[in-house]
Amino acid sequence: MSRKMHLALLTSGAGNHVAGWRMPDAEFGSENLDLITRAVQSAERGCFDIAFFADSLHGAPDAPAKNVTRLEPLTLLGALCTATSKIGLAATVSTTYSEPYNIARAFASLDRMSNGRAGWNVVTGASPEAAGNFGTDPFPDHAARYGRAREYLDVCKGLWDSWDDGAMVGDKQSGTYVDASKMHRLNHEGEHFSVRGPLNANRPPQGYPVILQAGASPSGLDFAARTADVVFASQQMLEDATVFSDKLRGLVEAAGRPRDALKILFGVMPVIGRTEEEAKEKVAALGALSDPDAAMRALCDRVGHDLTQCDLDAPLPELPETNMMQGHSVVLRKLAKTKNMTVRELRDYVGASSGHRLVMGTPDQIADDLALWFTSGAADGFMVLPAYLPGPVDDFVNEIIPRLQAKGLFRTAYEGSTLRDHLGLDRPPHPAQAAAPAREPVSAN
Amino acid sequence: MSRKMHLALLTSGAGNHVAGWRMPDAEFGSENLDLITRAVQSAERGCFDIAFFADSLHGAPDAPAKNVTRLEPLTLLGALCTATSKIGLAATVSTTYSEPYNIARAFASLDRMSNGRAGWNVVTGASPEAAGNFGTDPFPDHAARYGRAREYLDVCKGLWDSWDDGAMVGDKQSGTYVDASKMHRLNHEGEHFSVRGPLNANRPPQGYPVILQAGASPSGLDFAARTADVVFASQQMLEDATVFSDKLRGLVEAAGRPRDALKILFGVMPVIGRTEEEAKEKVAALGALSDPDAAMRALCDRVGHDLTQCDLDAPLPELPETNMMQGHSVVLRKLAKTKNMTVRELRDYVGASSGHRLVMGTPDQIADDLALWFTSGAADGFMVLPAYLPGPVDDFVNEIIPRLQAKGLFRTAYEGSTLRDHLGLDRPPHPAQAAAPAREPVSAN
Repeated sequence: MSRKMHLALLTSGAGNHVAGWRMPDAEFGSENLDLITRAVQSAERGCFDIAFFADSLHGAPDAPAKNVTRLEPLTLLGALCTATSKIGLAATVSTTYSEPYNIARAFASLDRMSNGRAGWNVVTGASPEAAGNFGTDPFPDHAARYGRAREYLDVCKGLWDSWDDGAMVGDKQSGTYVDASKMHRLNHEGEHFSVRGPLNANRPPQGYPVILQAGASPSGLDFAARTADVVFASQQMLEDATVFSDKLRGLVEAAGRPRDALKILFGVMPVIGRTEEEAKEKVAALGALSDPDAAMRALCDRVGHDLTQCDLDAPLPELPETNMMQGHSVVLRKLAKTKNMTVRELRDYVGASSGHRLVMGTPDQIADDLALWFTSGAADGFMVLPAYLPGPVDDFVNEIIPRLQAKGLFRTAYEGSTLRDHLGLDRPPHPAQAAAPAREPVSAN
Repeated sequence: MSRKMHLALLTSGAGNHVAGWRMPDAEFGSENLDLITRAVQSAERGCFDIAFFADSLHGAPDAPAKNVTRLEPLTLLGALCTATSKIGLAATVSTTYSEPYNIARAFASLDRMSNGRAGWNVVTGASPEAAGNFGTDPFPDHAARYGRAREYLDVCKGLWDSWDDGAMVGDKQSGTYVDASKMHRLNHEGEHFSVRGPLNANRPPQGYPVILQAGASPSGLDFAARTADVVFASQQMLEDATVFSDKLRGLVEAAGRPRDALKILFGVMPVIGRTEEEAKEKVAALGALSDPDAAMRALCDRVGHDLTQCDLDAPLPELPETNMMQGHSVVLRKLAKTKNMTVRELRDYVGASSGHRLVMGTPDQIADDLALWFTSGAADGFMVLPAYLPGPVDDFVNEIIPRLQAKGLFRTAYEGSTLRDHLGLDRPPHPAQAAAPAREPVSAN
């Protein structure tokens, strides 16, 4: 079977362009389930692998519009379980401000209700603003957050494995509801968590939900290489993307996994015109509607520094490393340096694409661009950021998808039923009981 | 408008009778979304106020079948938002093992997605087994758990109020997405929580989701009297129910609220026969399928003591007070004493009805029984526990509801759209900003 492209839709009720919601044909509403549902159903019509929802744990009004309010992602994925039947459903949940027993349960439940379509973007929380909502002050540092995340995910996997496959018997005749011999205590005692188990849910249909990761710091890449099924990444230039993917696949191999066990999807914001000129006009129209302050806040978020006092028409100043999301910060600094961009130019670029790559042009040009990144081997696919809803989603499904299909690069129908099927990933087998240390059968004490 | 009865359906994929799932016509599956959805849709056809889901935070195989595995309730309510359109959707979430910012978000999201139909049964966690899944050892005592619960709910209400109604502007012309002057920091600094706010969600359609409570200890009743909209209670005899309700309504009044601000629903397990004889046969058939060990475990759970070493044919021994759910424990001990029940008889009764009141007979007899409890003033309504799914739900909707409607005691159609509408409760107005201390407007810093 030839290698196939994978596509995720980054779905936000307020759109991904900082001014997308102001476009004449934009519907919007960060908490508008009906709008979000229609966008996800459109993506499902286009055979997207994943509808994905980002998250944050704070709502100060100076955040970009799309981040001020949101539907809570786990309940939102629940709603989409019944509104869709094929597309994968994934969302961000931070390991810094939650308990693994609760989150392992929620994803087991989502995977069950969706018949194996759930995915979890594991993040460690990158906002000091969020810390204030959880009494965590000062904000835990990068290394400490990843240490907790690693143990957290281990606990979740242990909980998902606390039932063997097929433990639920339900034999009316004998009266056996569950086979107690197929359940196991986890008895985890670690640095951050003490969790006895078992989970009060059967092993999920996918074994584990699909694990996604987006951190691009050394700790983030190490974490992804060891544990992730999908990485969302941001690169502006194909040569950098190639270097990034080669490095990450090398880490995957070094972690003892096949190089293709991890799918690397790069963020792109497509702006489609009937002509190149029309696409440029759309980008300009979006730019003209942008609030420069909102774009500046998006830039400060992405680079992790307050740039509001900088000279807008000077080059980006040298900036020290931060405790924030390192991927975007590094890539954007390099972009500014390579292209001699001023702070103002970088601000407008980030305001437009939310820090990801802006791809504008005719449907053919955009399909060719995505095909090049894919066939070169740099990308396994893309996370598509529609500028707003619902038009740009429908345009991508109607104009770009058929061209990718015509090139033989993208599926024309879902072949399997689970998200792991869509991604070409095996269902993780239940670890042999004998191989698992310290797992004591549960007696009906 | 005459006083109307309120009905909740306690929905469990494994049924509520300990052996319900073994009945020939039972479908079952604790994690069977399709089955649960059909039961809730049937209840919606019957104009029930609420589909309710209990919860627990552990899954040892010696729990009753219905408690071993479950769908996680917040994600499940999410799925039901799109599968229903009128019925209220409520679930249990413990305040002992979660963070208020996360749970306030989840219920804001559910209330938004359901257009004002969400309800939260606030519990404090009553199981030492759960504590082991959250590294909480020893299990926090009753008073400490209620102290945390009170502060927790205060924080949630503060977060739901952190946006004034109408803060989301979305004016494309001016580019104003939110009116920042309508958002407020909470700046809560309490014994258990430190939460800055604001919440990243608009004020919910219902202001606050409906608050339910089921604790019957003095702390639980005090908590309910001050904060709950609905109380689930368990009583076996009408005279005791009358005393209970009078006392609780007195506490409501003492807390400065109208006596009818709190709706008291008593748990009942109806077993319907075409004749009284047939109903008795059904109860006997359920009893014959019951695993006495499972029934004993249910009894031990309810009274909070290990009774497995007791003489089954002796009366229930005197038992000391426990740290467990006090309501069931007190009522069941009184039932045993009043009716001279042996441990065996009490075991079988609890196994049958999950500790609630078993009401068996013809449709007319059951409707008359419920009508008596309602018109006497003791009950504002009932939490109906179907012995299993889906038959007993459909039977109640087809046989009992029309009889209650014919008596003029129950609605024949939903009159409003929110759960508060169904319950005849006002939407809590946003507290005047002036009246709220220590709420500082958020500047776009």
